[in-house]
Amino acid sequence: MTDRPDFRPEPRAPKGFQDRRARDVLVERRILEQVSAVYERYGFEALDTPAFEYADALGKFLPDADRPNEGVFALQDDDEQWMALRYDLTAPLARFAAQNWETLAKPFRRYAFGPVWRNEKPGPGRFREFIQCDADTVGSARPEADAEIVSLAVAGLEAAGLPRGAAVIKLNSRKLLNGLLTAAGATAPSQQLDVLRAVDKLDRLGPEGVALLLGAGRKDDSGAFTKGAGLAAPAISSVLAFVQSGGGTRRETLDRIAGVIGGSPQGDEGLADLDRIDMALKGLGVDEDQALFDPSIVRGLEYYTGAVFEAELLLETRDDKGDRIRFGSIGGGGRYDDLVARFTGETTPATGFSFGVSRLAAALRASGQARADTVRGPVVVIVFNADHMADYFAVAGELRKAGIAAEVYLGAAGMKAQMKYADRRMSPAVIMLGGDEISGGTVTIKDLDLGRALAAGVRDHEVWRNERPGQQTIPRGDMVAAVRKILEGERP
Amino acid sequence: MTDRPDFRPEPRAPKGFQDRRARDVLVERRILEQVSAVYERYGFEALDTPAFEYADALGKFLPDADRPNEGVFALQDDDEQWMALRYDLTAPLARFAAQNWETLAKPFRRYAFGPVWRNEKPGPGRFREFIQCDADTVGSARPEADAEIVSLAVAGLEAAGLPRGAAVIKLNSRKLLNGLLTAAGATAPSQQLDVLRAVDKLDRLGPEGVALLLGAGRKDDSGAFTKGAGLAAPAISSVLAFVQSGGGTRRETLDRIAGVIGGSPQGDEGLADLDRIDMALKGLGVDEDQALFDPSIVRGLEYYTGAVFEAELLLETRDDKGDRIRFGSIGGGGRYDDLVARFTGETTPATGFSFGVSRLAAALRASGQARADTVRGPVVVIVFNADHMADYFAVAGELRKAGIAAEVYLGAAGMKAQMKYADRRMSPAVIMLGGDEISGGTVTIKDLDLGRALAAGVRDHEVWRNERPGQQTIPRGDMVAAVRKILEGERP
Repeated sequence: MTDRPDFRPEPRAPKGFQDRRARDVLVERRILEQVSAVYERYGFEALDTPAFEYADALGKFLPDADRPNEGVFALQDDDEQWMALRYDLTAPLARFAAQNWETLAKPFRRYAFGPVWRNEKPGPGRFREFIQCDADTVGSARPEADAEIVSLAVAGLEAAGLPRGAAVIKLNSRKLLNGLLTAAGATAPSQQLDVLRAVDKLDRLGPEGVALLLGAGRKDDSGAFTKGAGLAAPAISSVLAFVQSGGGTRRETLDRIAGVIGGSPQGDEGLADLDRIDMALKGLGVDEDQALFDPSIVRGLEYYTGAVFEAELLLETRDDKGDRIRFGSIGGGGRYDDLVARFTGETTPATGFSFGVSRLAAALRASGQARADTVRGPVVVIVFNADHMADYFAVAGELRKAGIAAEVYLGAAGMKAQMKYADRRMSPAVIMLGGDEISGGTVTIKDLDLGRALAAGVRDHEVWRNERPGQQTIPRGDMVAAVRKILEGERP
Repeated sequence: MTDRPDFRPEPRAPKGFQDRRARDVLVERRILEQVSAVYERYGFEALDTPAFEYADALGKFLPDADRPNEGVFALQDDDEQWMALRYDLTAPLARFAAQNWETLAKPFRRYAFGPVWRNEKPGPGRFREFIQCDADTVGSARPEADAEIVSLAVAGLEAAGLPRGAAVIKLNSRKLLNGLLTAAGATAPSQQLDVLRAVDKLDRLGPEGVALLLGAGRKDDSGAFTKGAGLAAPAISSVLAFVQSGGGTRRETLDRIAGVIGGSPQGDEGLADLDRIDMALKGLGVDEDQALFDPSIVRGLEYYTGAVFEAELLLETRDDKGDRIRFGSIGGGGRYDDLVARFTGETTPATGFSFGVSRLAAALRASGQARADTVRGPVVVIVFNADHMADYFAVAGELRKAGIAAEVYLGAAGMKAQMKYADRRMSPAVIMLGGDEISGGTVTIKDLDLGRALAAGVRDHEVWRNERPGQQTIPRGDMVAAVRKILEGERP
């Protein structure tokens, strides 16, 4: 059908995929530039891996997927091997590290950013392609490596534009809950996973709801029943006491955890890890308001083995209608000591932090922190007569040479449509060059910013009229300076 | 099989895909930053479209592919629709422009960069994923729009790091050859395509070889026969005279073309276009050594309808073994007035330029123009005693605050391995902080750059020993300044 010469496909992006215009692209690009600079200052090196991995290399670690390769975009190569688009940047890192382990300078510290793809049901604000930015240290078992990742996350988010106090990193260790459960006899991995899932709902269901999910199960408002983790009453109490032991300084939380965690080798290890993380954070200058311990933090992924962290946005944000919205998590990570071992058979300690770039950009915008809310258009040189094109281009060239974005209008429309074009592009000014100007060595500049300010009622029309015209004819040699004044918002 | 707990996949990137380390990533990132700045100064706005398009939207315009969707990575979505990864950035632009035509400020000028994917047989230096960078003007039929794209390509390549004279843009118009062929009675599109393919081999086969391909056909050295375009002798002479009419200034070439093109409406139109392009290039300040007319330029793609351009690298480049290599084309583009019409049914004039970012980076490197040949590692703070971690982190923090990349060594290895790590990372220096230094408020700095210079025989060992030690213990307050001196290559 597509071969028929009169076939007209409908122009549309695939379901769950989006086009992004300059406004969004530039905000995300600035985030990535700023964050990259911070990550490099921390000694992390850039790495790009391909969009595709062999499906067996991706493994079964996709969050919220029970079957291997569920939720990914996969296809078979010519040689019958299955390839899939990466769903995160961690699995490709594990593959790369395993492949190059012998020759890498270790610990291997890398950061990366780029699109990842998930073959999920799209929804509002839920896309199947989005940009992640990750930093990971592979080959260090020290809890200090976790602390450093947290410090880097704090510095990165701040550099991206989140002012201090706008976000906090919450830390926990998987070892604590695992130790507590093991001590309580709940050793089956599937049961421990059920516990993690129940704890993860603390925010939404409160302690009572979580208690039901930890025990026999819970019926929700619709009457649907969720089977529980099947813990006995004392274990339920311990878990609830543990997950609610956050608050205050990191030291205070540690003391409270020590009181409820009971004694188990794994739990003690988790406590000792957090203790060393706390000391390292002090050395790194990460204050209590930037990173705190919160035993209710779970992180959905199965593969974490030690410290887990979550970056939470604290800023009050509002949507386009002005309604308050809760952003919640804008990134997270933790320690995963078994991903490289999938390939090599040898446990390789690793820890890292990841954030969603579009999500952070949306948070910045919602909180009024993104500066590029409107993208300035170029100065537009109006075309009156095609015979004067060379003059128009020369004017545009002068402006560009001075670092000012400029273009000659190249459509076929008349004067009025050209003015409208410049206005829609958010151009600061148009330049008009008629026969008089060309022979007289002058240009006429019309200040569109002023026009917009007037239209918005920012300046009184009469006052403005007396002050100066929005349109002025000046010597060509003064053009760059005059446009700069408009761009800087200075008006005589 | 992948579900078996003892299954160990082999860690390897998929065939035809590559990992890129910091050295390459940073060169490409700088190219894109510089080029983006130029493109925005020309009034082009950023646009990101998804990796996927519906297969019917991509159409059959993949270069060198005869069947629709041949050579792309395609898969079927849940709703049975075929999606394919984009093979270039032009097809998605056409889809986007068609989809949003009513609401766009026109002409629509956008630039974009990102990976594209081609499902082709990989080979040495031939990858199935690579980064392209494009700029296009949609909605202007003016030849001046072509000239502006050429000017932007010239400015972009220069900003990317190619010094003036290192590359040239060669221009031609499809209308010229089409007019000539139509006048000669060769009007079938397939025959015209055969002529284009024959002309494209002028460089490789010379005029005699091309003459055979324009006529009955040609047998190559292996005895394989390629059927020719079947032109008659006079037409063959005209075509050869035309494609060899380049040389000298743009004006001289135009005069020569006028003499050989004969008279046809389409040919005259092509000549008039190039004439206006020449005038606009003058206005844009694009000199004869930056852009010239060359009638032998064809560009493989079927979809060009007017001007075509090719950016050719003139720099002498050498490969890793020091052998001279010919880079040839590093980018190209042209006018394509029918791509948007595929969707809308209405001809929409468009013109653009595209270059391969990895290819340009390789050209820069081969020509010695890429500055980031070695990627500097961070200053490494040596770990003697885990109890002093907070002090080590404080030192790293001081350096980072001063904008200097620094890290605390977080592996488990001893002093010697730590020094080796710092050397492999190309660290400028290591900082040593023992008990004496901590109690005395000092640091010991070892200058690794000096060590490398000595190892490379750059400085005489004895002279260096008298001048100063490569290792110095100084007050902590002087640390940042001392490291800066090493980074700047200043040694006392």
